[in-house]
Amino acid sequence: MVVRESEIRASEVAVTAPAADDAGLVFIGRIGTPWVSRIQTPRQGRLDGPVCRIEVFPPWIAALDGLERYERIEVIYWLHLSRRDLVRQSPANDGRSRGTFSLRSPVRPNPLGTSIVQLVGIDNGIVSVRGLDCLDGTPLLDLKPDRTLFSPLAPPQSGDFQVGESS
Amino acid sequence: MVVRESEIRASEVAVTAPAADDAGLVFIGRIGTPWVSRIQTPRQGRLDGPVCRIEVFPPWIAALDGLERYERIEVIYWLHLSRRDLVRQSPANDGRSRGTFSLRSPVRPNPLGTSIVQLVGIDNGIVSVRGLDCLDGTPLLDLKPDRTLFSPLAPPQSGDFQVGESS
Repeated sequence: MVVRESEIRASEVAVTAPAADDAGLVFIGRIGTPWVSRIQTPRQGRLDGPVCRIEVFPPWIAALDGLERYERIEVIYWLHLSRRDLVRQSPANDGRSRGTFSLRSPVRPNPLGTSIVQLVGIDNGIVSVRGLDCLDGTPLLDLKPDRTLFSPLAPPQSGDFQVGESS
Repeated sequence: MVVRESEIRASEVAVTAPAADDAGLVFIGRIGTPWVSRIQTPRQGRLDGPVCRIEVFPPWIAALDGLERYERIEVIYWLHLSRRDLVRQSPANDGRSRGTFSLRSPVRPNPLGTSIVQLVGIDNGIVSVRGLDCLDGTPLLDLKPDRTLFSPLAPPQSGDFQVGESS
């Protein structure tokens, strides 16, 4: 098995990426998983996978209130070891490549990972879940209810009723 | 109808947020929608909603190759007008509040929006989709195939087969 460190494979294409300073992120927690090397991590998480512990940092622990209502949650994290300059990638390293946006590879201009996970429990700022696929120590960016389980509490607005062709 | 500008509502809680400089984002495009004010935007997008145009900037247009294979795609964007310091919010402004992570409100420590959209077409760096819920001019951060339609091209790793209780 071969792990991507920083090499470029045959048929991959890198660009000179613009500076990544259009907006700034704050790491709001850290994700604990069983995977300490990139040759171990799942390509895709599974809802019957091992329980992982998401540690939420102060002052954001208070923001967890109510999350326990949802069986599944969306986790957004920062793929901190990924290069950001490839526009074509060769996941199978077989001489064929595809555009980065047609893949769920961690290598992307903004290395944002998203997973839908099964909630196991929330205790003292620790959110236990199944279904992650990231390295131990991955920085946490956001938690939200799964979109398919969430109904807005705010009153509807005109756009909620809009259908059709306009653009 | 009331739009949140920068007020704090009864029962909402703000914190002194740490500096948002742990990682930097690059805006890779701009999203065109019919909604030019926050009192119009849908609370949630709908797959039969109006066609919206996602403009991808160079040098990232080449990264779109292959995305046309997927009927639905995940769009990640930057909710550029949102405050970032609320840990409890009152979406209905009724004196009751819940933690930010139990809501899909745009107001969050890292204002990252995610939607699953229906792909209409890709032409010349413009990705046309239905199902968005964001303001006209919203900065684009990432595009990925819908996770439920995507099979990894890279060979499996040990984590792909791991189930159970370990943490």
